[in-house]
Amino acid sequence: MDVRVILINPQEEGNIGSVARAMKNFGYSELYLVSPPTLGGPAYAFASHGSDVLDSAAIVDDVSEALVDCDFIVGTTGKKGGHKTPKRKAVLPEQLKEALEGATSGKVALLFGNEAYGIPNEVLEKTDFVVRIPTSPKYPILNLAQSVCVILYELSKRSFEKTVVERPPSRQLRKNLDNYTEEIVGKVYEQPHHKRSAVASLSRIYGKAMLSEQEAGKIISFYRKILDKL
Amino acid sequence: MDVRVILINPQEEGNIGSVARAMKNFGYSELYLVSPPTLGGPAYAFASHGSDVLDSAAIVDDVSEALVDCDFIVGTTGKKGGHKTPKRKAVLPEQLKEALEGATSGKVALLFGNEAYGIPNEVLEKTDFVVRIPTSPKYPILNLAQSVCVILYELSKRSFEKTVVERPPSRQLRKNLDNYTEEIVGKVYEQPHHKRSAVASLSRIYGKAMLSEQEAGKIISFYRKILDKL
Repeated sequence: MDVRVILINPQEEGNIGSVARAMKNFGYSELYLVSPPTLGGPAYAFASHGSDVLDSAAIVDDVSEALVDCDFIVGTTGKKGGHKTPKRKAVLPEQLKEALEGATSGKVALLFGNEAYGIPNEVLEKTDFVVRIPTSPKYPILNLAQSVCVILYELSKRSFEKTVVERPPSRQLRKNLDNYTEEIVGKVYEQPHHKRSAVASLSRIYGKAMLSEQEAGKIISFYRKILDKL
Repeated sequence: MDVRVILINPQEEGNIGSVARAMKNFGYSELYLVSPPTLGGPAYAFASHGSDVLDSAAIVDDVSEALVDCDFIVGTTGKKGGHKTPKRKAVLPEQLKEALEGATSGKVALLFGNEAYGIPNEVLEKTDFVVRIPTSPKYPILNLAQSVCVILYELSKRSFEKTVVERPPSRQLRKNLDNYTEEIVGKVYEQPHHKRSAVASLSRIYGKAMLSEQEAGKIISFYRKILDKL
């Protein structure tokens, strides 16, 4: 997904730096700043190792310049739909992701408004989607950089996932585990309904534990040892 | 979901304030700070309307004090599993959410480490889960407050959906479970290091499964039956 992050009149240098860092964290690099303040020490301090994103940021005077070449325009809001711009009903970040994934190989403009005023209505009206992060009604407005962070997290989620998760047990291994479980349960319980209930509970526990291949192997070896002694 | 956010030796006031704001945004209020710096202007500026979360934060000297009354302990890491603590493989934020939702009505401790060093290994070893936000390998380390924000976003996402709540096992019940485990393992394995490894694996699996009281009881009764026959 080819994403351009556009900050409209951001006011805090620190936020701009934090946005650059979050972009780098989630693998994005194209940043447009519409009439930002001068970027100095604080912006770079917050950007940390994302300073290259700041260095290559495009600085423009008007949103329209930032939208050139973009195929989809996505606005963000901290408010629920229906206030002043009734046509723009907000979607959830995960719905946005789904929509973008299904729709296009084009460039997506992600617009974020000024810390105090948000995105101007005349800009919101041009968007294809408005996305809203679900938050507590007691304090719905996220910090600017945190909204960017959450949305980029959601959009990039599945591109880095594979590197994280450990391998689950194969179906065969899981089947073996279930067989050993049944075998032991069969030997140690008398009543059929106790057997069924024990097997069902243990199977559910294996599922909830999200066993890795290695852990399933550990339990099997534990059960083998038990069976040897029974 | 009853969540306590615990920051271990946070060093930047601004980060602590930003964490408080994100907590308020996502509807959480219980913050524990282990040996934080003095909280002054910058912390409150970043907390914005989340200042009440800062005001009510508990300040303690040691992680163990922050873990009192917690039923599940979740660590966070910016690193992939397998480095210095090979036993703690990371799950995704959405997997954590799923596990917590399915499992329990107990209190969940969410641990976040110091900005530079993360969570000390001896603390990581006590966790039931370690969660890792999927990020770019080019710059995998999120800002502290942004990690908190992403994880709370994921946990609170569907907060209006009803879930079936189960009670977690009491400490005593969990202790019984561990004792039975050790007893069986002691009887079925020969080598001391095999025994240790089996006990450690099983204990970790119980943690990851977020056992309910009833499920812990089921395993104990299963183990009792096994012991009767051994």
